[in-house]
Amino acid sequence: MALRAALRSKCGLPGLLSQLSSHSSHARVCVSPVLVAQQRNNSTTPKVKVEFDQSTGVAVMHMQSPPVNSLSLDFLTEFCINVEKLEMDKTCRGLIITSSQPKVFSARLDIMEMYGKSPERCGEFWRAVQEMWLKLYSSDMVTIAAINGSSPAGGCLMSLTCDYRIMADNPRYSIGLNETQLGIVAPFWFKDTMVNTVGHRTTELALELGLLYSPSEALKVGLVDLLVPEDEVLTTATKTMTKWLAIPDHARQITKSMMRKPTIDKLTSKREADIQNFVSFITKDSIQKSLRMYLEMLKKRRG
Amino acid sequence: MALRAALRSKCGLPGLLSQLSSHSSHARVCVSPVLVAQQRNNSTTPKVKVEFDQSTGVAVMHMQSPPVNSLSLDFLTEFCINVEKLEMDKTCRGLIITSSQPKVFSARLDIMEMYGKSPERCGEFWRAVQEMWLKLYSSDMVTIAAINGSSPAGGCLMSLTCDYRIMADNPRYSIGLNETQLGIVAPFWFKDTMVNTVGHRTTELALELGLLYSPSEALKVGLVDLLVPEDEVLTTATKTMTKWLAIPDHARQITKSMMRKPTIDKLTSKREADIQNFVSFITKDSIQKSLRMYLEMLKKRRG
Amino acid sequence: MALRAALRSKCGLPGLLSQLSSHSSHARVCVSPVLVAQQRNNSTTPKVKVEFDQSTGVAVMHMQSPPVNSLSLDFLTEFCINVEKLEMDKTCRGLIITSSQPKVFSARLDIMEMYGKSPERCGEFWRAVQEMWLKLYSSDMVTIAAINGSSPAGGCLMSLTCDYRIMADNPRYSIGLNETQLGIVAPFWFKDTMVNTVGHRTTELALELGLLYSPSEALKVGLVDLLVPEDEVLTTATKTMTKWLAIPDHARQITKSMMRKPTIDKLTSKREADIQNFVSFITKDSIQKSLRMYLEMLKKRRG
Repeated sequence: MALRAALRSKCGLPGLLSQLSSHSSHARVCVSPVLVAQQRNNSTTPKVKVEFDQSTGVAVMHMQSPPVNSLSLDFLTEFCINVEKLEMDKTCRGLIITSSQPKVFSARLDIMEMYGKSPERCGEFWRAVQEMWLKLYSSDMVTIAAINGSSPAGGCLMSLTCDYRIMADNPRYSIGLNETQLGIVAPFWFKDTMVNTVGHRTTELALELGLLYSPSEALKVGLVDLLVPEDEVLTTATKTMTKWLAIPDHARQITKSMMRKPTIDKLTSKREADIQNFVSFITKDSIQKSLRMYLEMLKKRRG
Repeated sequence: MALRAALRSKCGLPGLLSQLSSHSSHARVCVSPVLVAQQRNNSTTPKVKVEFDQSTGVAVMHMQSPPVNSLSLDFLTEFCINVEKLEMDKTCRGLIITSSQPKVFSARLDIMEMYGKSPERCGEFWRAVQEMWLKLYSSDMVTIAAINGSSPAGGCLMSLTCDYRIMADNPRYSIGLNETQLGIVAPFWFKDTMVNTVGHRTTELALELGLLYSPSEALKVGLVDLLVPEDEVLTTATKTMTKWLAIPDHARQITKSMMRKPTIDKLTSKREADIQNFVSFITKDSIQKSLRMYLEMLKKRRG
Repeated sequence: MALRAALRSKCGLPGLLSQLSSHSSHARVCVSPVLVAQQRNNSTTPKVKVEFDQSTGVAVMHMQSPPVNSLSLDFLTEFCINVEKLEMDKTCRGLIITSSQPKVFSARLDIMEMYGKSPERCGEFWRAVQEMWLKLYSSDMVTIAAINGSSPAGGCLMSLTCDYRIMADNPRYSIGLNETQLGIVAPFWFKDTMVNTVGHRTTELALELGLLYSPSEALKVGLVDLLVPEDEVLTTATKTMTKWLAIPDHARQITKSMMRKPTIDKLTSKREADIQNFVSFITKDSIQKSLRMYLEMLKKRRG
């Protein structure tokens, strides 16, 4: 079943390329790092818009970094500052994360942050990815991912940190940690977060094959909790939040910490080593060559 | 799905109160600590009745502590003495636990043991709860929970320690570790036992929301193993026991120990710290105030 | 559900005996150690036949040790040598394991290796079982079990080490770690492998009861990944392998190692103690007596 998902998936490297050329209206929505590069020059616009309703204590964070909310250093920095602000505001009890970009919740880590950059810069980027995960996975707020589009790799990781995941029931969208398909490896804390959500075997299969799941497959394996029509994702998230906020905060927060602390402590204690691992892996000639070929092939296809 | 269970659940604090006033015939059977307090003066009657059939090697333990078999210090002490007796009797190979009280298997920990008591007394109570868990979770006997009524909180914990759980298929009954809904927190060994049964994610969701599951929902997530009509719970448990006793005891016991020892060792090594944690949490002014308000609201509703 | 599987199972000791006498055409295919002993004198024929297709990089290993591919010391030695050869051949990227024997993939550990043997010999045997597991569970190759027959005990363990399990959809076949039914105990690393595949609770139930699952039950609990008609097992394995080999080897291998290393390290660090445990258990008078009675009963039935 899960394998069939992988086989059908169009979001691996070859599939991605074929989609860019075929413009198939039924293809899943995948993400091109070239597009990211071309449209990243609008740095004056905030990449994240926060609407906080003091009457309900719920903030909605709209990711609006065109075209696909990929996780660049700038994006992550702005994202984390906003999460921290809300975390420190004791009147804010719940956070809904959603996307303002069409067809995508959040794409993968921004490949441009990994290609042709200095080790120092790569390390700084990786620390920001860790920070995003640490802030969300340990948040005292109720966190709900309102997944209104595709959510591969880093987008999936972000979703997995939340307390609850509601996804648009659109078969063109997909979600999963598909790093392996690009020749890179999901680090141990991506893996731990996924094991905590869907168990060891589903994670093994998903990560070895770099599986992207359709919404219904993701629901079946437990990668998301609820599917709703696309235009009801945010309203359902809001209704769901109301139910979560009926639970006493203190007891819920202690419980959440009890469930997640061992996983969080593991990264915290190995954070510097994890950065070193990432930097030495990503700056390898072979990996840089892969990334360059990948980017060049994308350019060529679009040329 | 699990969330929907939570939302539909009527056994949180507000739901419990509304049930006491509405007397809805379709409400799930929940448990009032006031009732417990009012009816606890029949202390001369044994709180546990044991029927041991030497021809089969199977003991049936009927919990008969009116009205709802809540886990008081007296109840736990009597319960543990009886389990220990059976454990030491090498002719006893199987134990079925069931309830003589209508509509309830066993309710939560007795709130009266946690309200207005000295730290010493609270510590003594908590040690007895640990003892019940340790005795059952490590039992060499085959243990089957014949869950013929609602089984929230402590009752759910007791069920989870057994080798097999058979529940009455009555949608008015519910089962779950719903501590969070009352503002208290299931300790790590409640959590570990539940993770061992239904996995990490289902446990996270259940404990953060204090979910109570209907029998069919409990079966779906694996919280119970089998549903049967209410009047067949005990006979099915007896038949099931026969099948379990066909397995060579020694190999089964070693296997059971292998599966459970790490979880048991964890509490054993942290037992005193866990008691201290409980005592300092439960004797906090804020928690005592919550419990008092809870009890007063119940009285008022019934006044 | 799983319990019903156990109850229906005909492959426990009594069931096995009744099958030998009844020749029921609907009985599951179980394995007699006496047959193994009687037919083990064809030691000149290789017990394993390897077909390696250099154009695809895929090797198919046919187990052909009559009658039931039971795991004897000779078989394991030959098996491990062949796996190691393929592992060291960098042109070999995928390994499919299947059986040339009718109705059985691989039966249990060879009981004749455990009965009436010296402690030294028992220890040598156990080290070979460990070696098989270590080699397969840590293999850099993509490994697929093409389970074209029953696969109890050791055969199930071998299947569990693979990356993917495809089983013949024939209700006469069964799969499971059923050691407990014979009065012996699956060691911790059998247990760990099963927990990694189907989770803690399913493993607890399966190992305590020595459950053998029908193919459809095995699929339901996740013990196998795919069922196909019996004559399509190998062709489906080959097609599936093509899909796995589309994933970049290096990223897949690092990911596989990340998922499995803790479990492998655990046996590696306790290997000698595990051998000692096995030897002292299996050479016990009581266990030897059980094995003798078992073998004698089988002879008598067939006499």
